[in-house]
Amino acid sequence: MRNFAITALLSLAVMFSIGAQPSATELAIRTVLESQQAAWNRGDIAAFMSGYDASESTLFVGATITRGYQRVLDNYRRRYPTKQKMGQLAFSGLEVHLLEAQHALVIGKWRLDRPADAGGDAGGIFTLLFKKTTAGWKIIVDHTS
Amino acid sequence: MRNFAITALLSLAVMFSIGAQPSATELAIRTVLESQQAAWNRGDIAAFMSGYDASESTLFVGATITRGYQRVLDNYRRRYPTKQKMGQLAFSGLEVHLLEAQHALVIGKWRLDRPADAGGDAGGIFTLLFKKTTAGWKIIVDHTS
Repeated sequence: MRNFAITALLSLAVMFSIGAQPSATELAIRTVLESQQAAWNRGDIAAFMSGYDASESTLFVGATITRGYQRVLDNYRRRYPTKQKMGQLAFSGLEVHLLEAQHALVIGKWRLDRPADAGGDAGGIFTLLFKKTTAGWKIIVDHTS
Repeated sequence: MRNFAITALLSLAVMFSIGAQPSATELAIRTVLESQQAAWNRGDIAAFMSGYDASESTLFVGATITRGYQRVLDNYRRRYPTKQKMGQLAFSGLEVHLLEAQHALVIGKWRLDRPADAGGDAGGIFTLLFKKTTAGWKIIVDHTS
């Protein structure tokens, strides 16, 4: 009976460790995305952009390819010039795929709730390539469609 | 004078090695994409699909997320049931970004030339995550838009 109780407790411990605890890397990456979402929703594009690697080689792939952190920032500022045009951003269905020590891929959906006169609702899918940099986990390639 | 000649030859050797020779990994990945393009253009979807990892975890991100090699194959067969509907595929602007030993990201453009009655021309941008598998470099995530 005592053995059974110990086995049951061990099984529960294993279940919780598998089911409930993402790795530290996954948590770090999810925190970046949560911070981005919060920054966007308070109208702070500069803080939103801190999720990207501040590098000339950072890429945003949309209808065209935008190269370099500064140009990606400029595009966001041009497309979303006011807090109203920025609307309310929500990420969902996030999947973090750890690749090797320094890279991870995130797949997810985005949705923008906006009044019709600010451009209306929008949404789609993204894949984000993250890299572990000296400043933490940062997006180096964003393909949003 | 002799030293100058040796220096000049060494400089040329360095220039050629930097400018003209992609790494063996990049060549292997480009060969996969060339084989895919050739397979598509002879109407051979099975051979085209051999560029993808034959795994349940292979992902195709388009308007929705398709999971697993077999479902990705089924989608291609459903969307492109005849050689005429497949048209002529051309990749361009390919960039191979080596990440770590086992992963690389490819960005490129695709274009499909087709008669109007077969669906007309189409095109867009893709990002492909490649993994080095025991069967060679294979696509594990394809985001096409």
